[in-house]
Amino acid sequence: MISKEGKDMKPFVVNFSDIGIDFKGNHIVRKYNDIKHIFKTTDPTLERENPVIYEVFEGPIQEKEGELMFLITILYPGTVNGEFFMTKGHYHTVENTAEVYLGLRGKGLILCQTKKGEFEAVEIGPNKVVYIPPFWAHRTVNISDEPLIFFAVYPAHAGHDYETVEKEGFKKRIFRGDNGILFVEQ
Amino acid sequence: MISKEGKDMKPFVVNFSDIGIDFKGNHIVRKYNDIKHIFKTTDPTLERENPVIYEVFEGPIQEKEGELMFLITILYPGTVNGEFFMTKGHYHTVENTAEVYLGLRGKGLILCQTKKGEFEAVEIGPNKVVYIPPFWAHRTVNISDEPLIFFAVYPAHAGHDYETVEKEGFKKRIFRGDNGILFVEQ
Ligand SMILES: [Mn+2]
Ligand SMILES: [Mn+2]
Repeated sequence: MISKEGKDMKPFVVNFSDIGIDFKGNHIVRKYNDIKHIFKTTDPTLERENPVIYEVFEGPIQEKEGELMFLITILYPGTVNGEFFMTKGHYHTVENTAEVYLGLRGKGLILCQTKKGEFEAVEIGPNKVVYIPPFWAHRTVNISDEPLIFFAVYPAHAGHDYETVEKEGFKKRIFRGDNGILFVEQ
Repeated sequence: MISKEGKDMKPFVVNFSDIGIDFKGNHIVRKYNDIKHIFKTTDPTLERENPVIYEVFEGPIQEKEGELMFLITILYPGTVNGEFFMTKGHYHTVENTAEVYLGLRGKGLILCQTKKGEFEAVEIGPNKVVYIPPFWAHRTVNISDEPLIFFAVYPAHAGHDYETVEKEGFKKRIFRGDNGILFVEQ
């Protein structure tokens, strides 16, 4: 029995595949115009076409302590004038909560930073597990030419603080360079 | 920087592959003679050869609140007189803690039960995510002819209560049947 509200949740299995994920929870879609302010520049073509930059398929989990949220994110390839497509990024509202990513497809970077000013960029991809300790904000960047797909797990009560990141940004932006990627101080 | 003890843990990535997992944490190996008491019968050949039944590769995570443990388990194929190889199984000591499994290879069942007597068997395999809610004991059974490999995440402070399962067992045992698998009341 799968219930987002039910108190008597039983163990359950959900399937995913390349052609359709059915996680039975929220499906969050972020289009370019929803998040264009996170990029350094704007692109009128993207504004007109308004493509999906990423989408998130959540499991049917209540946001309460003891439960674990799981999800799959698909972050599409592309750039805004050379700046790679990325997620909004967030701190957890309940700051002492970690997150674990498992890469499934594609190649990306997880940008991480603390309120004390520490910054790390960690690679994600198939056969890689990324650990984001408590207190670290995280944003994902697709640095490949295919969809970046990853699985993530975090405590369901963690909550999302997008505001701090919107105000302060991440220390570095990731651009396509002539011979790879460029880290640009924001 | 990866540190099991360090207070200033930074985000990090670890790799796994078919030929060698390097999660940098504990490597737990359970051989037949270590766990033979969990099976209904004994097998003298297995006692003599003492094969590895399963092994667990843990991430380098401190067992404290806020952190998430991650691991990969390899449960080998085989039976003890028809009873499929399985893990010991446990409740979490901190009972209000869930666990998430992602199947990577092979095919198995997660047996789950509560102290109230509820029982569920849920299939695990590639492209399947299994959710084990708080308060549910869990044991994995390999019902295929190849290694069952899965990724798991749970709160690092959860702890393992193996004793309750050793005393009470799981409600059902899984045997190889003529046309598939047999659930046998224990
Ligand atoms: Mn998060
Ligand atoms: Mn467990």
